[in-house]
Amino acid sequence: DGIDLDLERTARRGYPEAIYCAGKTPEQVGAIAREVGTRPDVTTLFTRAGDAHAEAVLHELPDAFHDREAGLLAWPPTPPETGGGRVVVVGAGTSDLPVAREVVHTARYLGREVELIMDAGVAGLHRILRRRDTLRAARVVVVVAGMDGALPSVVAGLVSAPVVAVPTSVGYGASFGGVAALLTMLNSCSPGVSVVNIDNGYGAGHLAAQIAAP
Amino acid sequence: DGIDLDLERTARRGYPEAIYCAGKTPEQVGAIAREVGTRPDVTTLFTRAGDAHAEAVLHELPDAFHDREAGLLAWPPTPPETGGGRVVVVGAGTSDLPVAREVVHTARYLGREVELIMDAGVAGLHRILRRRDTLRAARVVVVVAGMDGALPSVVAGLVSAPVVAVPTSVGYGASFGGVAALLTMLNSCSPGVSVVNIDNGYGAGHLAAQIAAP
Amino acid sequence: DGIDLDLERTARRGYPEAIYCAGKTPEQVGAIAREVGTRPDVTTLFTRAGDAHAEAVLHELPDAFHDREAGLLAWPPTPPETGGGRVVVVGAGTSDLPVAREVVHTARYLGREVELIMDAGVAGLHRILRRRDTLRAARVVVVVAGMDGALPSVVAGLVSAPVVAVPTSVGYGASFGGVAALLTMLNSCSPGVSVVNIDNGYGAGHLAAQIAAP
Amino acid sequence: DGIDLDLERTARRGYPEAIYCAGKTPEQVGAIAREVGTRPDVTTLFTRAGDAHAEAVLHELPDAFHDREAGLLAWPPTPPETGGGRVVVVGAGTSDLPVAREVVHTARYLGREVELIMDAGVAGLHRILRRRDTLRAARVVVVVAGMDGALPSVVAGLVSAPVVAVPTSVGYGASFGGVAALLTMLNSCSPGVSVVNIDNGYGAGHLAAQIAAP
Amino acid sequence: DGIDLDLERTARRGYPEAIYCAGKTPEQVGAIAREVGTRPDVTTLFTRAGDAHAEAVLHELPDAFHDREAGLLAWPPTPPETGGGRVVVVGAGTSDLPVAREVVHTARYLGREVELIMDAGVAGLHRILRRRDTLRAARVVVVVAGMDGALPSVVAGLVSAPVVAVPTSVGYGASFGGVAALLTMLNSCSPGVSVVNIDNGYGAGHLAAQIAAP
Amino acid sequence: DGIDLDLERTARRGYPEAIYCAGKTPEQVGAIAREVGTRPDVTTLFTRAGDAHAEAVLHELPDAFHDREAGLLAWPPTPPETGGGRVVVVGAGTSDLPVAREVVHTARYLGREVELIMDAGVAGLHRILRRRDTLRAARVVVVVAGMDGALPSVVAGLVSAPVVAVPTSVGYGASFGGVAALLTMLNSCSPGVSVVNIDNGYGAGHLAAQIAAP
Amino acid sequence: DGIDLDLERTARRGYPEAIYCAGKTPEQVGAIAREVGTRPDVTTLFTRAGDAHAEAVLHELPDAFHDREAGLLAWPPTPPETGGGRVVVVGAGTSDLPVAREVVHTARYLGREVELIMDAGVAGLHRILRRRDTLRAARVVVVVAGMDGALPSVVAGLVSAPVVAVPTSVGYGASFGGVAALLTMLNSCSPGVSVVNIDNGYGAGHLAAQIAAP
Amino acid sequence: DGIDLDLERTARRGYPEAIYCAGKTPEQVGAIAREVGTRPDVTTLFTRAGDAHAEAVLHELPDAFHDREAGLLAWPPTPPETGGGRVVVVGAGTSDLPVAREVVHTARYLGREVELIMDAGVAGLHRILRRRDTLRAARVVVVVAGMDGALPSVVAGLVSAPVVAVPTSVGYGASFGGVAALLTMLNSCSPGVSVVNIDNGYGAGHLAAQIAAP
Ligand SMILES: Nc1ncnc2c1ncn2[C@@H]1O[C@H](COP(=O)(O)O)[C@@H](O)[C@H]1O
Ligand SMILES: Nc1ncnc2c1ncn2[C@@H]1O[C@H](COP(=O)(O)O)[C@@H](O)[C@H]1O
Ligand SMILES: Nc1ncnc2c1ncn2[C@@H]1O[C@H](COP(=O)(O)O)[C@@H](O)[C@H]1O
Ligand SMILES: Nc1ncnc2c1ncn2[C@@H]1O[C@H](COP(=O)(O)O)[C@@H](O)[C@H]1O
Ligand SMILES: [Mg+2]
Ligand SMILES: [Mg+2]
Ligand SMILES: [Mg+2]
Ligand SMILES: [Mg+2]
Ligand SMILES: [Mg+2]
Ligand SMILES: [Mg+2]
Ligand SMILES: [Mg+2]
Ligand SMILES: [Mg+2]
Repeated sequence: DGIDLDLERTARRGYPEAIYCAGKTPEQVGAIAREVGTRPDVTTLFTRAGDAHAEAVLHELPDAFHDREAGLLAWPPTPPETGGGRVVVVGAGTSDLPVAREVVHTARYLGREVELIMDAGVAGLHRILRRRDTLRAARVVVVVAGMDGALPSVVAGLVSAPVVAVPTSVGYGASFGGVAALLTMLNSCSPGVSVVNIDNGYGAGHLAAQIAAP
Repeated sequence: DGIDLDLERTARRGYPEAIYCAGKTPEQVGAIAREVGTRPDVTTLFTRAGDAHAEAVLHELPDAFHDREAGLLAWPPTPPETGGGRVVVVGAGTSDLPVAREVVHTARYLGREVELIMDAGVAGLHRILRRRDTLRAARVVVVVAGMDGALPSVVAGLVSAPVVAVPTSVGYGASFGGVAALLTMLNSCSPGVSVVNIDNGYGAGHLAAQIAAP
Repeated sequence: DGIDLDLERTARRGYPEAIYCAGKTPEQVGAIAREVGTRPDVTTLFTRAGDAHAEAVLHELPDAFHDREAGLLAWPPTPPETGGGRVVVVGAGTSDLPVAREVVHTARYLGREVELIMDAGVAGLHRILRRRDTLRAARVVVVVAGMDGALPSVVAGLVSAPVVAVPTSVGYGASFGGVAALLTMLNSCSPGVSVVNIDNGYGAGHLAAQIAAP
Repeated sequence: DGIDLDLERTARRGYPEAIYCAGKTPEQVGAIAREVGTRPDVTTLFTRAGDAHAEAVLHELPDAFHDREAGLLAWPPTPPETGGGRVVVVGAGTSDLPVAREVVHTARYLGREVELIMDAGVAGLHRILRRRDTLRAARVVVVVAGMDGALPSVVAGLVSAPVVAVPTSVGYGASFGGVAALLTMLNSCSPGVSVVNIDNGYGAGHLAAQIAAP
Repeated sequence: DGIDLDLERTARRGYPEAIYCAGKTPEQVGAIAREVGTRPDVTTLFTRAGDAHAEAVLHELPDAFHDREAGLLAWPPTPPETGGGRVVVVGAGTSDLPVAREVVHTARYLGREVELIMDAGVAGLHRILRRRDTLRAARVVVVVAGMDGALPSVVAGLVSAPVVAVPTSVGYGASFGGVAALLTMLNSCSPGVSVVNIDNGYGAGHLAAQIAAP
Repeated sequence: DGIDLDLERTARRGYPEAIYCAGKTPEQVGAIAREVGTRPDVTTLFTRAGDAHAEAVLHELPDAFHDREAGLLAWPPTPPETGGGRVVVVGAGTSDLPVAREVVHTARYLGREVELIMDAGVAGLHRILRRRDTLRAARVVVVVAGMDGALPSVVAGLVSAPVVAVPTSVGYGASFGGVAALLTMLNSCSPGVSVVNIDNGYGAGHLAAQIAAP
Repeated sequence: DGIDLDLERTARRGYPEAIYCAGKTPEQVGAIAREVGTRPDVTTLFTRAGDAHAEAVLHELPDAFHDREAGLLAWPPTPPETGGGRVVVVGAGTSDLPVAREVVHTARYLGREVELIMDAGVAGLHRILRRRDTLRAARVVVVVAGMDGALPSVVAGLVSAPVVAVPTSVGYGASFGGVAALLTMLNSCSPGVSVVNIDNGYGAGHLAAQIAAP
Repeated sequence: DGIDLDLERTARRGYPEAIYCAGKTPEQVGAIAREVGTRPDVTTLFTRAGDAHAEAVLHELPDAFHDREAGLLAWPPTPPETGGGRVVVVGAGTSDLPVAREVVHTARYLGREVELIMDAGVAGLHRILRRRDTLRAARVVVVVAGMDGALPSVVAGLVSAPVVAVPTSVGYGASFGGVAALLTMLNSCSPGVSVVNIDNGYGAGHLAAQIAAP
C-alpha cells in the first residue's frame, strides 16, 4: 500500500521516527498507528495531526499522549528518562503557543529536560530581561516568534548557547504567512542563530534534543 | 527641455523641493542647479547625487553643502533656524551610516534640531538601553537598520514618541537588498512604527521634520 | 497559562495595551477580558476580533464598545477626553471602510479628535479636491487605500501634515492581497508619506494619535 | 547564420519590423542594418541600442535617425506622413524621459502625430490639471511613470480616451526595478488603463499607433 | 454612510459607473442599486457579484440583466445602440469562459458590437488559424487566456489591430493564480499587446470599447 | 456553447485528448463525457476531477475507470495494449501518492508498462538504493517529491535513463505550495533531470509515455 | 585541493563528466584540464567558460573545441560517432543563439545527430509552420526561447515527440531574467513539455541525448 | 565617529567580536584594526573583506591571518587551543569552497577542531557514503551546498549529530542567488537540519563552535 515505515531509524540514527499526518488520510494514519502499536520499545510521534487523524490514532492507541492545539500525539505516552543538557523554549506571544508546545513535546519525547517561557516579545523588553538567568542555564535555546521575528536576535545577544529560531505564521498582511519572521531570523545581526521552517516546532525540538544530547 | 521645477512647493506645502539626481544626467542636474541659484530664499536639496552629479552642482553653486557618503548637497549651505521638537536618529550598525546621515541632513535643512546615535544594534542591547534618556527626549525617533531590521521594534517599546523606520540594503543573501528589514519593520510587534522605502533617508528626514513641526 | 498582559504599558509608554485576537482562542481572549475588567482606569482595545472572540469579550464586559465590521472592541466604552491635534482619515473606496473605521476608533480611544472622509479615490479627483480645507486642518492625515494605492501620493501633495498610508487587501489578481498598494505607498513620489502593514488600521490609528499628541 | 528578418511584416501586419538590439552582438546588428539598407521602402527601427550597436548601424546607414538616450535608431530617417488620431505622451518625472522619447519616436515612425508632456507627476497635481485640454484632444494617451506609478490612474480619470501605461524602472529599494509601478498600473482604480512591460517604450508607441490608426 | 456614487461619470468621461461588489456587503450593494434605479438614463454595471450581491440588486431592480457565471449585472437591461468598430473576444479554454463573458457584456453595455471565439488555445493551432478572417475584421481583439498565456502573442502576430490581453487565474501550481499568464503577456514577443489585471474582464471590455469608439 | 473538443488529437499527435476538469462546471464536464461516449475508438482522460465532476462523468459513462484520490477518470476503462519501454515512477513520501498515481494511470492509458516505487525519500537512502535494479531497467524514471524535492537529484545520479521530476505541493511554510521542490529540481546538480509543473502528474505521465514510445 | 573529478561517470552512468566553470578560478579549471588530458578515452565538456577559463583549458588542451559565444569547450575535439534518434533544436530569436548552441554541442558530444532551426518565434507563425517536416522527423525537440517563452507550447502542439523547453534570460523588465519564460513553459497548455533551468543549454542537450539514446 | 566596537563580547557571551567589512570603507576598517591591535587577549575576525579592506587591516596588523578567497582575516593569527567536540564541514562542489573555508576558519578561531570534506555532491552518492565514518565522529556537521541544496538532507539521514546547512549562491537562473538551496534546506525531509543565511559561512562556523562547545 505504499507506506514503508522507518521504525529502524532509532537504531540507525538514535532518534525515533515521526509520522507527518498532514498529507495522509485518517485511514493511512490509522494503519500506521496499528503498526506502531507492535513496537512499544520505540517512541513514535504523530505530528500535524488534525482531529480526524488524532481519532484514528487514539482508536488504535487509546493511551497515547495527545496535545490537540499542538497537533501532536506520542506513544507510548511516557517520555523516556531525561539526559543531556537543558532545553529552554521561549515564545514571543500567546499566538505562538501551539508551535512552542510542539517544540516542548518533541524535545521531551526525545529525552531532554525542557523549560518554557511565554509572552516575552521585544515590545516589552523587561519581560525577557528578567528571565536572563533561566536563559543562561540552557544548553540550547529555542525561540518561537511570528510577526517581526525580532526576538531571536535579542535572545542570542544575551546567551552563549546556540539559538534555534522558529518563525511562525502568526501575523497578517506583509508577514506573508511567516516569511517576514523567517527572513528576520536568517538575517539576525547576532551570531549563533540558525533557523528551521515556518511553524516547524517538530524540527526545532528534534534539533534542540540533538544539540543538548549527552 | 522637459524639466519643470516645483520651486513653489515651499509656498504650497511649507517644505522645499528636492532634486532626485539618480535618474538624471549631470547636465540635467547642472541646469537645475543654475535655476536653483536664482532662488536663495528657498533651501533646495540634491539627493542620491553621485560624484558627477555633485561636480555639476558645485560648478554652479560652489559653496553648496556636500556630504559625499550620503550623496546629498544643500543650497544655500546654512540650514534655516531650528524650530519644533527634537528629532533623534538611531543607526543599528556602521554600515547604515550613509543613510542615517541623509536623514540627519534632511531634517536639519527642514529646520529641526537633530541628534544621532550610532552602532546601537540589538545584538548588544546595553548600547541602546543606556541611551534611553536621549530617546525619551525626542518628539520623533528615526531608526535606521539593515539585516534583520529588529531595532525599531525594540526602540518603539521604549518610547512614547512615534518611530519612523528606515530599512537599509545593508546585508547579503536573504536580506534581498533590504527587503528582509523592510518586512520586519512593517510587521513590528510594537505599535507606533511606520516605514519608508529601503535606503530612503530623505523621506524619513522629511517626515520626521513634519512630525516634529512647531 | 502563558499569557502575560502588559497592562503597565500605559504607565511606561503612555498608550494602553491592545489585545490581538486573531491568533488566540476565544477562551484565551475571554480570560484576558476578565483580567481587563479589573482595570477600569486603563482603556483596552481588542483588535481583529471575530464573532466568537467578540462574544467572549462581551460575556465578561457586556458594555464594551463593539464595531463588528472593524473587528474591534474597546473597554471601558467611553473614549478618554480628546486632546492634541486633529486626525483626518481618508478612505479611497467603500471596500476600505472596515480598515478606515479601525483607524478612527483606535485614534479616538487614544484621545484624539477624528474626522473621516470616504470614497475619495483618484479615479474622480474632484472628490478629494473639494475636501482640501478639511485636509489642511489636520495635524496628521491617515489615507486608507487598496488596489493601486495611489491616493496617499495625491493627498501628500496637497497638505503639509505628515501622511500615514494604510494599504488594504482590497483588490484581486495582481493586487496580491494588498502588496501592490503597499509598494505604491512605499514608493510615493510625494515626500511625507510613511506606511504601515496591509490592513493595519490599528497601527495607523495608534501612530496618528502619537503624531497628533499634545 | 540564424537571422531571419521579418521584413514582410509591413505587408502582413501593416507595421514595420523592429530590431531588438540588446541581446545581439554589434556584428549581428551591423549585418541586419546592411540588409535593411536594401529596403528603403520599409521603415525599420532599431531599439535598445547601446553605443556599439548604434555605431554598427550608422556605419551601414550613416543618415539613420539616432536618439542616443532613448537607445533608438530609425531608417530611413524621415518618418512617414502622419495619419489617424493624435497620440499624447505624458511623463511623470525627468528620469522617465528616455522611455517617453522611445514612445514618441516609435509612434512617429509608425505614422502618428505625437505630443509630449513632461514632469507631470501627481506630487504636484496642478501640473497635470493645467494640461487637461491637450489630454482631451488625444485619441490615445500614453503615460510613462516610475516609482509609485500613480499617474495613469489620475490621467484615466480625466479623459475618455484609452490610456496605455508604461511603468519605468526609475526608483530604488522597494520599487524593484519597476515592479511597484507595474503593479500600481495593473490595479488602476480607473477603468481604461492597460499596461505594457517595464521600460517598454517601443511596445507602448506601437500600440498607441495601432489604437490611433486611421 | 460613506458611499459617494460617481453617477456623473457618464457626463464627465463618456462611460458609465460600475459597482465593484466584491468588497461590499449585500446591504451596501442593495443601497447602491436603489440609487441606480433613480437614473434609468445611465447604464450601470455591477461586477464581481456573488449570489448574495445579485439577490440584493435584483430585489431593487428585478429586470436587471444577470450573468451568474460572469458575476455581472446590468441595468437597464437593454444595451445601448451599437456604434464604433467591432470587438472580437478570443478565449483559450473552456475554463476562461466566465472572464471572456465579462469582457463581452462590458463592451456590449458600453455600446459596441462584439463577437466571441472560444476554445482556441495554441495547443491546437488550427483552431485559431481557421478564424483569421473574423480576427482581421476587428477594430480591437481581446484575448483571454490562463495557464501559459501564450495565445495573445500568436493572435497579435496575425492581425494589425491592437490586442488587449487578459490573463486568467485558470491553472494550478506554478501558474500562481494567473501570474504566469500575466508575465507571458507582458513579455509578448509580438508588438501590439497590452495587458490588464488577472481576471479583469471588466477592465478589458471597457478598454476595448474605448479603443473601438466611433 | 464554447466547447470545442480536440478529439482528432490522437490522429494529429498520436496521443489522446485529456479533459482538465478543475475550471469547468459539472454540467460542462457531463456534456463533454456524452460526446466522448460516441468515440470508443479513442481513449479519453478526465483529470483533476472533483467528486461532482466524477459523478457527472460516471452518469454518462458508468463503466469509466475512476481513481478518486488521483482525481482521474478514463474511458474506455481498459488501457490500450502496452508497447515501448518501461516507465518507473518513484514517490518520496506517502503524501505524494495521489500525484504518483496520476502519473501511473496516465502512462498506462497511453500504452506503457509502468512500475511504482513509494516511500523512497532521501532521509533513509537505503530505501532507494535497494531498488537500483528496478530503476536501471527503466527507459524513463518519473520522480514525484514534495518538501525539499531532493530525490530526483539522487535518482538521476544512479541511472542513465532520463528523469522527469514532478514537484508536489506536499509540505508547509517555506515549501510555498511546492515552489521549494520545483526550484530544487530545476537546479538539480545531476544532469538528466527535467521538470513539469507542481502536482502535474498528468503532464509527467504523458511525457514519460512519449519518451518511452516504441 | 578539494577537487574530486567524477571521470568514472561514463562507466557508471554512460555519459561523460562536465566541468561547470562559472564558480571556479581559472587555476582550478586549468588543473582539471590537465587531469582530463590524461583520459583521451572519455569526452569531457567545460561549460559556462569565460575567456579566462577558456584560456586555461586551451593552455593544457590546445586542440580542444571551443565555441566562445556558447561558453563551451570539449576535449577530445572530435565528437563520438552518432547513434540513436535525431535531436532538433529550435530557437525563438537571435538572442537565444548562445544557449541554443550550447544545446547543440552538448547533444553532439554525447553522440547524437542534431539539427538547428533559428529565429522561429511565434510573432511570425509561418516561420515555424514551414519547418513542420523537420520537426516531425525528430525523436526529441528542444525549444529555446526567452521573453514570453510561448514557442514550446506551439511546437508541442505540432509534434508527437517529447519537447524539452529551455527558458532563456533574454528580455527585460518583467521577464525577470528568464522567470517569465520559465513559468510559461511550466504551465504549457500542450502536454509533452518539460523544462530545465533558465539558460541551461547543457542540461537540455544532455537530456535530449538521453531521450534519443539508441 | 559612530563606531562602537563590542570588544567586551568575549566577556559577555564567551565568543569574540567579528567585524563585517562589506558595508564599511577601508578607512573605517583600518581604524577598527588599530583598536583591535590594542587587545591581543581577544581573537577578532574580519569577515567579507575585499582586497582594499584586507590591505587596511594588514597595514595595522601585518601578521594577521588572511584567506583571500574566503574574505577572512583573524588576529592574533594563532587560533586558541582546541576544546569541545569535532566539527566536520562538508562542501558539495568546488565552487562552494570559499564559503566552506569561511566556516572552517571561524570554527577554528573559536577553538574547535575542524575537518573538511569537499566535492561530495549527491550526483555521485559514493563520494559521501565513503566518508560515513568521518561524519559519524562529528559532534556537529556543517553542510555547504548551492544549486539544488540537496546534500544536507542526505547527510542528516546518515548521522545522529545536528546538521547546520549553509546555502550558497552557486548556481544560475532559477537558483536565484542561493534562494533555491535555502528553500530546499528549510524543507529538509530529514529532521535535524537548521539553516543559516545564504553564503553565511561565518554564522555557520560560529554556531558549530557553540554546538560543539565543551
Ligand atoms: N511536522 C513535521 N515537519 C517536518 N517534518 C516532519 C514532521 N513530522 C514528521 N516529519 C518528518 O517527515 C517524515 C515523515 O514523512 P512521512 O513518511 O510522509 O510520514 C518523518 O521521517 C519525519 O522525520
Ligand atoms: N532620495 C529621494 N527619494 C525619494 N524621493 C525623492 C528623493 N529625492 C527627491 N525626491 C522626491 O522626488 C521628487 C524629485 O523628482 P524629480 O522631479 O525627478 O527630481 C522631488 O519632488 C522629491 O520630493
Ligand atoms: N524594445 C523592444 N521591446 C520589446 N520587443 C521588441 C523591442 N524591439 C523589438 N521588439 C520586438 O522583438 C522582435 C525582435 O526580436 P529579434 O528578431 O530578436 O530582433 C521584433 O519583431 C519586435 O517586434
Ligand atoms: N491535469 C492537467 N494538467 C495540465 N494540463 C492538462 C491536465 N489535464 C488536461 N490538460 C491539458 O489541458 C487541455 C485541456 O484543456 P480544456 O480544453 O480546457 O479541457 C488538454 O488538451 C490537455 O492536454
Ligand atoms: Mg516516512
Ligand atoms: Mg520634479
Ligand atoms: Mg501581548
Ligand atoms: Mg526577429
Ligand atoms: Mg466607486
Ligand atoms: Mg480543450
Ligand atoms: Mg563536479
Ligand atoms: Mg558591530
